[in-house]
Amino acid sequence: MAELRQNVVTREWVIITPERAKRPDQFVREKPQEPPLPMSMPDCPFCVGNEHLTLDESFRIADKENWRVRVIANKFPALTDRGERVRKVDGIYRSMSAVGFHEVIVEHRLHNMTTALMMEEEVADILKVYRQRYRVIRKDSRVEAIIIFKNHGEAAGTSIVHPHSQLVATPIVPNQIRHRMDEAIRYFDDTGECVCCRTMQDEVNAKERIIVQSKNFVAFIPYAALSPFHIWIFPFRHASSFDEISDTEIKDLAKCLRIVLAKLYHGLNNPDFNYSIRSVPTRDLHAEYFHWYLTIVPRVSRTAGFEIGSGMYVNTALPEESAEFLRKVDVPDPKRGSVIPLFQ
Amino acid sequence: MAELRQNVVTREWVIITPERAKRPDQFVREKPQEPPLPMSMPDCPFCVGNEHLTLDESFRIADKENWRVRVIANKFPALTDRGERVRKVDGIYRSMSAVGFHEVIVEHRLHNMTTALMMEEEVADILKVYRQRYRVIRKDSRVEAIIIFKNHGEAAGTSIVHPHSQLVATPIVPNQIRHRMDEAIRYFDDTGECVCCRTMQDEVNAKERIIVQSKNFVAFIPYAALSPFHIWIFPFRHASSFDEISDTEIKDLAKCLRIVLAKLYHGLNNPDFNYSIRSVPTRDLHAEYFHWYLTIVPRVSRTAGFEIGSGMYVNTALPEESAEFLRKVDVPDPKRGSVIPLFQ
Repeated sequence: MAELRQNVVTREWVIITPERAKRPDQFVREKPQEPPLPMSMPDCPFCVGNEHLTLDESFRIADKENWRVRVIANKFPALTDRGERVRKVDGIYRSMSAVGFHEVIVEHRLHNMTTALMMEEEVADILKVYRQRYRVIRKDSRVEAIIIFKNHGEAAGTSIVHPHSQLVATPIVPNQIRHRMDEAIRYFDDTGECVCCRTMQDEVNAKERIIVQSKNFVAFIPYAALSPFHIWIFPFRHASSFDEISDTEIKDLAKCLRIVLAKLYHGLNNPDFNYSIRSVPTRDLHAEYFHWYLTIVPRVSRTAGFEIGSGMYVNTALPEESAEFLRKVDVPDPKRGSVIPLFQ
Repeated sequence: MAELRQNVVTREWVIITPERAKRPDQFVREKPQEPPLPMSMPDCPFCVGNEHLTLDESFRIADKENWRVRVIANKFPALTDRGERVRKVDGIYRSMSAVGFHEVIVEHRLHNMTTALMMEEEVADILKVYRQRYRVIRKDSRVEAIIIFKNHGEAAGTSIVHPHSQLVATPIVPNQIRHRMDEAIRYFDDTGECVCCRTMQDEVNAKERIIVQSKNFVAFIPYAALSPFHIWIFPFRHASSFDEISDTEIKDLAKCLRIVLAKLYHGLNNPDFNYSIRSVPTRDLHAEYFHWYLTIVPRVSRTAGFEIGSGMYVNTALPEESAEFLRKVDVPDPKRGSVIPLFQ
C-alpha cells in the first residue's frame, strides 16, 4: 500500500508508492558504450603532472614529493576569501558580499579511480583532509556554515571525471539549515534528546533499513527516504559537527563509506551520486540538539514539477526493499594495484 | 561581482556568480537531431482515438463530441481518493494513508503541441480546467494542499510527450509550504502587508527584472532567482489561492503565460521546464498574508551536492541579464492551423 511518511529529522513528507514502484534491480544503470577511462589524461587539471594548472594549494597529504590528496582553490569559486562580510538591506532586497571559501579536494592520483574502489586508508586520507580543512576554516569569523560534498557523474552535476570533492563555507546560515536547526532545538526542548540520536537508535533497533553497521557508524536508508537508495551514515557518538570526528572514527567511517559506495557501485552499476556532510552552523559549538551525518543521494530518479511546487517528494522505491537489496550486494576487497577501469 | 541574495518570500539565499556566469545565449539548447514529432501517435494514451486507454475522466471542455481539454485519473497515482486519512504515530515513525487526488490534464488534441505555440483561448481553457478542478477538490475535507504543475521534457521529469499537466492534492501540508506560510504570517505580523504584494510592487517599480506586464499580471525573474531563467508570474490582485482567479484574469494570465513560455521556446530553443501554481493550504481561505503565484523553472542547470547539503543554490546567470534577454525575444502570434512541429 502506498503511504506518506514523515522524516522526523527534516520534517519532510514523502509519498512512497509501491504501486508505481520499481523493484530495486530496475534502478541498475545500463552498461554504457564508452571505452574505459585511462589512468591519466593529458588535459585533466587534477592529474599528476598538471599541478601547475591548479591554483593556491592550501593543503596536501604526501609521500615525499608524491601527493596523495591535494586541496586547491576552485578555479571558478562561488565564494572567495577576499574582503569582509557586507550585508545590505534595502527593503525586500537583501544581499551579502560573496565571501567565504570554495575549495576542491583532489582525492586520488589516478584519473579513473573512485571511492568505491579505493583502499580504506585512501578513503581515510580524504576524510582526514576534510577534517583538517573544516578545523582551519571554521576559525574564520566570516564563516557561518561549512558544507563538504562530492558530485560523482554528470547527472550529479560534475563535468570533471577525476575523483574530487568540494568544500564551501558560507557567510550566512542557509535557510534550510536554519529551519532544520530550529526544529531540532524544538525536539530537544520537548524531549531532552537529540533527534538524530533518537532516529539512529530506533533504526538500529528496527534493523530492516540498515545497510551496514560498525562499531562507530551505521548506514541506513531513512524510513522517509526522499528518493531511491537515499542513504544516511550516522556516527553513534553524539557530535554536532564533522571536525569533532576522532582518528578512530575516521578509520571506521572510511571503511563504512567505502563499503556503502562499493555496494552502490557493484549493485547499481556505478550510478551517479552526490554525498554531503551536514553539520550544525559553525558558531554552535558542541550543540546538544543535532548530530553531524553524511547523506548519499544516488541520482537514479528525477525531480519534477510536484517537487518544485511543494518541496515534497515521491519515492518509487520502498526503503526496506532497497536496504535489503544493498545488504545482499557483495563487495570485493580492493587490493592495491588492482584498479578496475571506471566507465564515465 | 558575485553576491549572495536572499529571497524575502522564500527566505532562501542564492549565490549569484557572474565570474563563472554564462551569458544568456549560452543557455540556448542545441538543436536536436530527432525528426519533428507527428500530430498524433498510435500508442500515445493521450491522443485522439485512444481515449479508451485512459481511466475515469472527471471533466472535459468540448465542442460537441470533440474534447479540447480532458481531465483523467493518473494511471499510476501517487495518491488516490479511496479511504480515509489515517495518521499513525509510533515514536519517530510517522505516516499517513496515501489519500488525495492525482489527476492528469490532457491539454490539447495534438500530440506535438505545446503551450508556447497555442492560441490564447486554448491556454485559457487549460487554466479554466485547473480552476474547476481546484474548486471541486478543495471541498474534499481530506485535502490540505493542492499543487498544479506541468513537466515539459525529459529533464523536467516526464516521459509522455503529449501536452499535459497534473494536479496533486495532499492530505497533509507539505513541510516547505508550512514553513513558507509561517514566514509569510510573520512578515504580515511585522509589517501588516502580504510579502508577495510587497515583492511584486517593488519589482514593478524596479523594472529591470520584468519580462512582461499586463493589466492583471506581471512576469519577472526574482531578484534572488535560484536558477537561470527561474520566473515568477504574480497576479496584481491579492488572492491567496488559485481558485479565486476571475474569468477576466484567466484570459489575461493565458496571454501572459503563453508569451513567457513562447519567449523561452523561441529564445532558448524549447528548453525542458516545469511550472507550478502555488497557493495557500486549502483550509486557509482568503488568507491576507500570502498570494498565489505561478513559478516556472527551465531545466537548464543541474543541482549538485552543495544544493543537497545546504538547500542553497548557485545561480550562474544574473537575473537582470536573463530578464533583459527574454524581454528582447520576439514572439510570433500563433494562428490556428499554423502548427510548428515540436522537437522532443
